[in-house]
Amino acid sequence: MLPLQLQPESHIPLYVQLRDQLRALVHSGDLKTGDRIPASRELAGQLGVHRTTVANAYAELESEGLIEGHVGRGTFICGASVKQFSPAPRTNGNGGPARWEALFADERGDEGLSRLMPDVPPGAIAFTCARPSEEFFPIEEFRRCANAVLRREGRRILQLGASDGYEPLRRALIEWFRSEGQNVRSEQLLITDGGQQAIDLICKAFIRPGDAVALENPAYPGAISIFAGARVRTIAVPVEADVSRTGHVGLDVDALENVLLQNRVKLIFITPDFHNPTGTAMPLSERRRLLEIAARYQVPIVEDSIYARTRLHGTALPSIRSLDTHGNVIQIDSFSKIAFPGLRVGWCVGAQSAIERLRLVKLSTDLHTDQLSQATLAEFIERGHLKRHLAKMKKVHSSRLEAMEETLQKHMPEGTTWSHPEGGMTVWVTLPPGFDAGDLQIHARERGIYFVPGRHFYFQSPQPNTLRFGFSAVDEKSIRRGIQTFCELLKSELRKRQRGGRDEFRARVALV
Amino acid sequence: MLPLQLQPESHIPLYVQLRDQLRALVHSGDLKTGDRIPASRELAGQLGVHRTTVANAYAELESEGLIEGHVGRGTFICGASVKQFSPAPRTNGNGGPARWEALFADERGDEGLSRLMPDVPPGAIAFTCARPSEEFFPIEEFRRCANAVLRREGRRILQLGASDGYEPLRRALIEWFRSEGQNVRSEQLLITDGGQQAIDLICKAFIRPGDAVALENPAYPGAISIFAGARVRTIAVPVEADVSRTGHVGLDVDALENVLLQNRVKLIFITPDFHNPTGTAMPLSERRRLLEIAARYQVPIVEDSIYARTRLHGTALPSIRSLDTHGNVIQIDSFSKIAFPGLRVGWCVGAQSAIERLRLVKLSTDLHTDQLSQATLAEFIERGHLKRHLAKMKKVHSSRLEAMEETLQKHMPEGTTWSHPEGGMTVWVTLPPGFDAGDLQIHARERGIYFVPGRHFYFQSPQPNTLRFGFSAVDEKSIRRGIQTFCELLKSELRKRQRGGRDEFRARVALV
Repeated sequence: MLPLQLQPESHIPLYVQLRDQLRALVHSGDLKTGDRIPASRELAGQLGVHRTTVANAYAELESEGLIEGHVGRGTFICGASVKQFSPAPRTNGNGGPARWEALFADERGDEGLSRLMPDVPPGAIAFTCARPSEEFFPIEEFRRCANAVLRREGRRILQLGASDGYEPLRRALIEWFRSEGQNVRSEQLLITDGGQQAIDLICKAFIRPGDAVALENPAYPGAISIFAGARVRTIAVPVEADVSRTGHVGLDVDALENVLLQNRVKLIFITPDFHNPTGTAMPLSERRRLLEIAARYQVPIVEDSIYARTRLHGTALPSIRSLDTHGNVIQIDSFSKIAFPGLRVGWCVGAQSAIERLRLVKLSTDLHTDQLSQATLAEFIERGHLKRHLAKMKKVHSSRLEAMEETLQKHMPEGTTWSHPEGGMTVWVTLPPGFDAGDLQIHARERGIYFVPGRHFYFQSPQPNTLRFGFSAVDEKSIRRGIQTFCELLKSELRKRQRGGRDEFRARVALV
Repeated sequence: MLPLQLQPESHIPLYVQLRDQLRALVHSGDLKTGDRIPASRELAGQLGVHRTTVANAYAELESEGLIEGHVGRGTFICGASVKQFSPAPRTNGNGGPARWEALFADERGDEGLSRLMPDVPPGAIAFTCARPSEEFFPIEEFRRCANAVLRREGRRILQLGASDGYEPLRRALIEWFRSEGQNVRSEQLLITDGGQQAIDLICKAFIRPGDAVALENPAYPGAISIFAGARVRTIAVPVEADVSRTGHVGLDVDALENVLLQNRVKLIFITPDFHNPTGTAMPLSERRRLLEIAARYQVPIVEDSIYARTRLHGTALPSIRSLDTHGNVIQIDSFSKIAFPGLRVGWCVGAQSAIERLRLVKLSTDLHTDQLSQATLAEFIERGHLKRHLAKMKKVHSSRLEAMEETLQKHMPEGTTWSHPEGGMTVWVTLPPGFDAGDLQIHARERGIYFVPGRHFYFQSPQPNTLRFGFSAVDEKSIRRGIQTFCELLKSELRKRQRGGRDEFRARVALV
């Protein structure tokens, strides 16, 4: 074991502490050339930190030439600082395969997303998704739209297009925003390959390795994944799923202010409406405070709004971008949650200069978004199908959420809490302290119930007693049956624990 | 002027030389805190280096905290090394807009692509494109395919899909490869958003800022742009468009070996078939030598094959990947050049471990490629439309290339050479020394003729007397007229120069 001591309460990032301590061990001679240091996963386990922390520290030491990875053997101290650009040594003999693995000996930390999509056997009830159910897709209307646009403008659709998006879709979106009372100019709009690409482009355009981004914790794993892959430091801002602590749910704005005070944060990334995974929405007052604080510290905001139009009840709240008067906010949105996830079409809206920068990055990334889907979606909007589909899905999702809330209310054992979303696609459950949703998951799967343990959504201080139920892709009957089964399982586990506690007590009494 | 002296012949990269000299000037006190240093464009001009060189040096000094950019004011010496993560200072007063511009004060260097696509007025003859002409798109067949797949599998298409691609398209591609004599296993295939995204994913997955990539010079600007944006150093390997120097056209493999000997190169990026812009194809012997050398230095290869299936005459050559026995090559391909550029669907094929890594990066980048286009293209292949379309386009492009070659042969003045491609979509022209295609472009545009000056394709040592003619998107009549007009313009400019030369001679004689 290496003599390392990290201080989580320090304002110095953990990975910087780790990097500096490892470097000091080399300089003091405690670590010598050729010494093997633990794999990042292993060291993270020993230190009780996230693997990304260790990976970041190792990455910096590697770029300094202090450590070096050998495929299949591990990571070793190089001792003297090896110049990065010294001539490659000629290999002796006939050479051999160039190992791609040698190019990715380090972990990128962006593997998290794939763990979110487990294979669910047929017949099981899958609360794992936060996406619309395909049974309600208006396929026939969509097909007619595709036909119409291919007949009318097929050549234009199939030829190379503009990097900022297919003009008819841009016009249809701007018109749609106008019908909702939002004024968006053409220069403020960029079409992207869904919300995921928008986050990726923003990261490429504005953030550099080592920069810090303030991010909700827990957060959308797709965002965590992008920042980890780009070696961006994510600084956790807690999200409250329970009103009791701060008096409201959603992002803890006081904690955010503290983060901005103590760190040079380049960007704030938030999901104010039906945050995935907690399902919470920031109240208006907190949106205003957030904007005021961001302006004070001059930190731009990225607002992920992909769930905003999935509100099921309660009053719609203005977006952060619409409240902002400084051009400080880029808003991300997509057709994924309101229409068809299989079409990778989304958009972002923001200050003209920021959008132009993003457009250039988009051009270099993939030239432009696929035009067949863009053209068909434009037609889908213009024929009024999208508005009708939204209204229909609101009914479907409302009754699904209701079924879930009712069943939770009826069967959940005491000591368990859950969020009460007014929209989105997920409910966030907090089990009694000490419970591990990962363990529970194993038993639940045996009963044909699938969900996602909460720890997959944390990039720091994971709460093992949390889990996410997606309600949008499961019908009411299955929701009732699945949630009841889950609650019974939980109760039985609780009884076991109580019995275990009593047994332990009896054993201790017997020993006395 | 700063006392800087760069040595281009040194094996130390220019930007490292520049960085170290600037750092030394700060340490020696020649540059003091608050001193303004030139903008990267300006300094690049003074030193006669590429802007990316200066941008890279500045980026490193900035991350060391030695220099700092101020929007609208310039770049300044910070003096003492400012810790990157020190608390952000509270701003006084009420704060204000966070400036997105502050996040991109540096140039990414990936703006080159947008300059390639000038607005061409109606009626002009545009030799600017390297893409198929939309007039031959089999829209009706395509529309029927879209209908069939939406009717048959609409729900599946519109729902979230797999990160490695839509299964029916994967199967159709593997079957197609098999019909061509290539055996590709499913684990070796990844669907991407066109060839451009494949390059971007490879860069994200395998290359880090500061790493070196060996790249053809001139090269496809989309590749230059990706590497520049990712702060990857591109090391130039010349491409011969003229057989006379090395006895063959295409990549100069001896120069590549020299590059590998002198640099720690992470990746070799090449376009062996109908390289854009030169239109050249590497002969078989050079493909074998390339593989042998890459294996000796253990450097993996990325082979961009998007023009390989556009061969118009001559014998098809095996791809680098098919010659390779080490799993050392990732091959990039796309539907852009052989079918529809407006659908952003491409693929890459490589060793299983490399493809799995790319799949994870793809998942984090945009989840997956749009499924409507994937499904429709799968149907388009299975119905045999793609093979028929390829055969039709071969005829179209052959007679266009013939028209271009004939007209060049007939009207080009002596001293001008051009490449003789057997496929692809471009012809590369080398004007007599001293001519600047950029100047010529101004006059050509006045006559309604558009082309791309060669310098846009160089990332180092641009040859101003080169230019690219795209022949695929212009009909034979316009090609004849356009090329003849260009040749006449060139001859008239040559006459002016000769006259100018005589006048100058006379003037000098008069002075004696």
